[in-house]
Amino acid sequence: MVNRMTHPSAPRGRPRDSRAHQAILTAAAELVAELGYAAASIGAVAARAGVGKDTVYRRWPGKAELVYEAVFTRTEAAPAPDTGSLTGDLTALLESLVQEFAAPAATAALPGLLADFAADPDLRARIRSEFLAPAKDGLVAVFERAVRRGEADPGLPVDLVLDTLAGAVFFHVGLVGERPGPQLAAQLAAIVGRGIETR
Amino acid sequence: MVNRMTHPSAPRGRPRDSRAHQAILTAAAELVAELGYAAASIGAVAARAGVGKDTVYRRWPGKAELVYEAVFTRTEAAPAPDTGSLTGDLTALLESLVQEFAAPAATAALPGLLADFAADPDLRARIRSEFLAPAKDGLVAVFERAVRRGEADPGLPVDLVLDTLAGAVFFHVGLVGERPGPQLAAQLAAIVGRGIETR
Repeated sequence: MVNRMTHPSAPRGRPRDSRAHQAILTAAAELVAELGYAAASIGAVAARAGVGKDTVYRRWPGKAELVYEAVFTRTEAAPAPDTGSLTGDLTALLESLVQEFAAPAATAALPGLLADFAADPDLRARIRSEFLAPAKDGLVAVFERAVRRGEADPGLPVDLVLDTLAGAVFFHVGLVGERPGPQLAAQLAAIVGRGIETR
Repeated sequence: MVNRMTHPSAPRGRPRDSRAHQAILTAAAELVAELGYAAASIGAVAARAGVGKDTVYRRWPGKAELVYEAVFTRTEAAPAPDTGSLTGDLTALLESLVQEFAAPAATAALPGLLADFAADPDLRARIRSEFLAPAKDGLVAVFERAVRRGEADPGLPVDLVLDTLAGAVFFHVGLVGERPGPQLAAQLAAIVGRGIETR
């Protein structure tokens, strides 16, 4: 499975497929938020989306991938921010991550997903290559533009910067359970953005 | 329960208690690494530590607190780093966090602990107030010294900086499952340290 959102050149039949695809993702996010990860079965998701279980299994190898895509790809689904400054772009990126991790479906999905990841290293590797890596690739443009504007160095460890942004939000909101204040994204952008700026 | 490690003024009877306490923590970390979180019961921990279950329950309300303290308080148990520079202190802190999250017991404990946290908001609140808050308090000195040296501003959001450090390591090592390279701590210290430095 490739990251469809960042590859808009679609395979044949996309319009019909895309509608079913989106209905399944919406049903998965809703059911996880309502019932929790354990109770949100593929069967229940298929029923709510009005498709057969086969249709779900043709698209996702299992529940973990489906729920991950339904709940944790909001930021990568949006176009990479392009506000004109590194700090502006990082703030926009962090605002999206804060929304993603603070959503009820995220809070409900996280523990079950993490348990599945831990029990199945192959699953974690698939999530890493099929979702995290393309999401990071989609954001490289933010840093390339910052380098061209002279705001960041070409040698910047982009992968680590993105893990730092996601990790900060994940830890503060998802794990420690702080309610994100209105200034959270801007504060984190200041901490990390200033850190990677060329002086 | 207060954070004993950062409050060395001990209650009566500490020498004997302390030995049992440490034996229980060691047994818990070992059993989680060997058997996983689910199978590492309080009974099994007590048996390996050579104490009764009552002794464990007198000290910890349940398995989650015990395992958290056994596995995730390595960094706070060490004295706050004092290398003479903010970047040096952050690097030392991050090296400790990397060791903590890369340890087999941490990998084994994390999913079960996160599932317990998610199922029990009171538990998460206790972990936050009994472990995370004292750990952060113990590290405030690092930033106070940086302010006195003119390296950081007095208004620094220390709480958020510490969540960023822990989150970056947690996400990169614990969640994404990257093997920490030898430069990881220094790279993260550069990203965050430069970001919070006074210019």
